[in-house]
Amino acid sequence: MSPRRTVVGDCFRDDCPAREVLNHISSRWGGLVLGALRDGDLRYSEIRARVGGISEKMLAQTLDVLERDGLIVRTSHPVVPPRVEYALTASGRALSERLLELFTWIGANVETIVRAQKQYDSRQKSA
Amino acid sequence: MSPRRTVVGDCFRDDCPAREVLNHISSRWGGLVLGALRDGDLRYSEIRARVGGISEKMLAQTLDVLERDGLIVRTSHPVVPPRVEYALTASGRALSERLLELFTWIGANVETIVRAQKQYDSRQKSA
Repeated sequence: MSPRRTVVGDCFRDDCPAREVLNHISSRWGGLVLGALRDGDLRYSEIRARVGGISEKMLAQTLDVLERDGLIVRTSHPVVPPRVEYALTASGRALSERLLELFTWIGANVETIVRAQKQYDSRQKSA
Repeated sequence: MSPRRTVVGDCFRDDCPAREVLNHISSRWGGLVLGALRDGDLRYSEIRARVGGISEKMLAQTLDVLERDGLIVRTSHPVVPPRVEYALTASGRALSERLLELFTWIGANVETIVRAQKQYDSRQKSA
């Protein structure tokens, strides 16, 4: 990739690294984990409590992917028992803020969407 | 759900309909299809051309899910040959705008993320 600032990635292209990053954060759990870290650094168990339904295995995998993308950092505190915390990087924070706007919009509009689903289903039944 | 405006959905809860909506738009293709429609109504083949890598089958499934959520509408024009167009609803447009902000951010920052991935991989190798 050229270092020129005008050259940007394109999520719509499946041969662009931007698509891979989009897949990471729009994976079943990536976006929620990034969003969960928005309010401050969290331990593994705290993230798991915040993100309903995530398994141990999926959380571990998701944290690895986000760390590799440079969106979160893992800090191991030298205490007994060991304490490991996850925090957003500057990139992770920027992304997390956009994701939370999305989650907030969905949360605020979920009743409208559920109503649309019911209308669609009753149209299908009567068709 | 209570009709009170103060009651909102929560994407972080796996028993909330908001999570299901999040899954639809953060499915492999949902967000990209919504984003593609941002610039105007499109025919099936035009969406397919815009969203790199999507198969016929996945596009058809994705359009059904988004239509059921009330995020897009399908209009069949009575012409020969038949012309079917997809357009955003008001909800779909609001969501599409937030998604495009996300895609734009990713596109603009992809070089930083790819650099982080390379650094992570070389740390793993040398560890």
